[in-house]
Amino acid sequence: MRESAFIAHLLASEPPPRGAVLLGPGDDMAALRVEGGAVLAAIDAVVEGRHFRTGTDLRLVGRKAVLRNLSDVAAMAARPLACLASVAAPRGFSDEDARRLLAGVRSAAEEHACPLVGGDTAIHARDDSPLVVSVAILATPAAVGGEFVRRRGGRLGDLVAVTGRLGGSLDPDGGGRHLDFPPRLAEATELAETLGTRLHAMIDLSDGLGVDAAHLAEAAAGDLAIEIEASAVPCREGLPIERALGDGEDFELCFCCSGPPPAEVRGVPVTVVGRVVEREGGPRVRLRRGTVLSDASRFGFEHRSEETTR
Amino acid sequence: MRESAFIAHLLASEPPPRGAVLLGPGDDMAALRVEGGAVLAAIDAVVEGRHFRTGTDLRLVGRKAVLRNLSDVAAMAARPLACLASVAAPRGFSDEDARRLLAGVRSAAEEHACPLVGGDTAIHARDDSPLVVSVAILATPAAVGGEFVRRRGGRLGDLVAVTGRLGGSLDPDGGGRHLDFPPRLAEATELAETLGTRLHAMIDLSDGLGVDAAHLAEAAAGDLAIEIEASAVPCREGLPIERALGDGEDFELCFCCSGPPPAEVRGVPVTVVGRVVEREGGPRVRLRRGTVLSDASRFGFEHRSEETTR
Repeated sequence: MRESAFIAHLLASEPPPRGAVLLGPGDDMAALRVEGGAVLAAIDAVVEGRHFRTGTDLRLVGRKAVLRNLSDVAAMAARPLACLASVAAPRGFSDEDARRLLAGVRSAAEEHACPLVGGDTAIHARDDSPLVVSVAILATPAAVGGEFVRRRGGRLGDLVAVTGRLGGSLDPDGGGRHLDFPPRLAEATELAETLGTRLHAMIDLSDGLGVDAAHLAEAAAGDLAIEIEASAVPCREGLPIERALGDGEDFELCFCCSGPPPAEVRGVPVTVVGRVVEREGGPRVRLRRGTVLSDASRFGFEHRSEETTR
Repeated sequence: MRESAFIAHLLASEPPPRGAVLLGPGDDMAALRVEGGAVLAAIDAVVEGRHFRTGTDLRLVGRKAVLRNLSDVAAMAARPLACLASVAAPRGFSDEDARRLLAGVRSAAEEHACPLVGGDTAIHARDDSPLVVSVAILATPAAVGGEFVRRRGGRLGDLVAVTGRLGGSLDPDGGGRHLDFPPRLAEATELAETLGTRLHAMIDLSDGLGVDAAHLAEAAAGDLAIEIEASAVPCREGLPIERALGDGEDFELCFCCSGPPPAEVRGVPVTVVGRVVEREGGPRVRLRRGTVLSDASRFGFEHRSEETTR
């Protein structure tokens, strides 16, 4: 594949500008109409040998690259606007590979009204260099002039809740839900609408409930911690609690609110798993099993530099 | 380096939100205030072994990753708003390496009022996997409610002009101006202001005048070509015309306008190098030397998949 092949595919199949897209791919920059005066932006990459195994269907790789960014949009209770993709591919990457990767990127983007408006490709000098797909995403507050929901904002006494079920995102064979999942976009905006000012803070679960709840606790004003009740955690298919806290890549929502959240949102269960408490010199996240407390802030997948394949 | 080290550095030294930044690094997304109702966006990566040699000062790598995106902003005659960086680093990447790379990213970003508002890092499974730095950039039209300048818009009879001098961006030792250069931001907005509706189309020279002028010709309405007068091309330091047309990574502006452009803009020379003509079945860019015409659309560096180091 030449550098321009991915971009050529991008251009060839791109519909003319519509909706918020004032200028699509093919120029030096894309242009988007932004109402409400604010735009949200994030960037996130998937890397071969780290976020997916060599040999994974490239369509799924493309989907994951977009979906994990859409999960960030959900975490802000925002509305996707557009995305851009930057690909660094091994030398042997074929045009068919590029088409398949792009089909995945585009399918995930279009399912969530988040058109792919720009791209860039580079070809590694070697065949065995890893594929890297970086996606940047733009979003707008869900309501015009509306607020977005930050990580910061949890308060003493808040309930801490999650959507869906946690753990087991990675199948033993390297596939699994971490590659293809429904980002909780509609659920997040409905939660924001339903809870209103009672919704104080939110994050999406990418590293795992242990680490991600710690992010919420750190971002909260004051010296606070989150106490998780082990028996309350909605583990997927009978997994042990450690897996539900630490596997990561659940891409569910975790939020702090005052008063009870709804029991479900758009058919997805909502479960209260804990509460914002005083830290009292302890860990940022503690797990309670009966009367025993343990440090749960260290559970969670941080994509460390050991050899792993997810 | 753990994945979070780059992000930790990003957070540690980030000033509090100011100007257009409503929400800086550290949340799921950054938030920017956008006036004028439109935002421009692009993404572009630098890849080890392709856009820079192994062993290049990481500060320069970080600078190049941002500067080439700023050059895209200049090509739209737009104003930088903010940038985000995604890094995939070899396993052996140290905290000091991360600091140096980030210092380069940040220095280029801050010099051009384009704050780094978000980032993401992944660590390759292997020590010899190439460093990839993807930068996404956001911009706004330079004037509120203002226009941006597209590649599309060149008209029959337009003059074609470039800023600065062309060729020789890569030093024989692998360093050179391609790593660190002044993106023509102020020059572009001044040209747009001075020329007004006489400025029809613009691109920045990344692939080389041959290939990039072909982009302008292809994007123009009608079956048009650009004829370049060899003797007019401002070659850097006595380089042959082939180098000025084909070396690439000049990061100068190339534009189509009706009537003569100014002779200089903010101290940078502006040179008319050719004219938009009927294509007449020929190449998109033709080079005239006296009475001899040749195809110049094939000059230009397209980062093909051969082993190269830029």
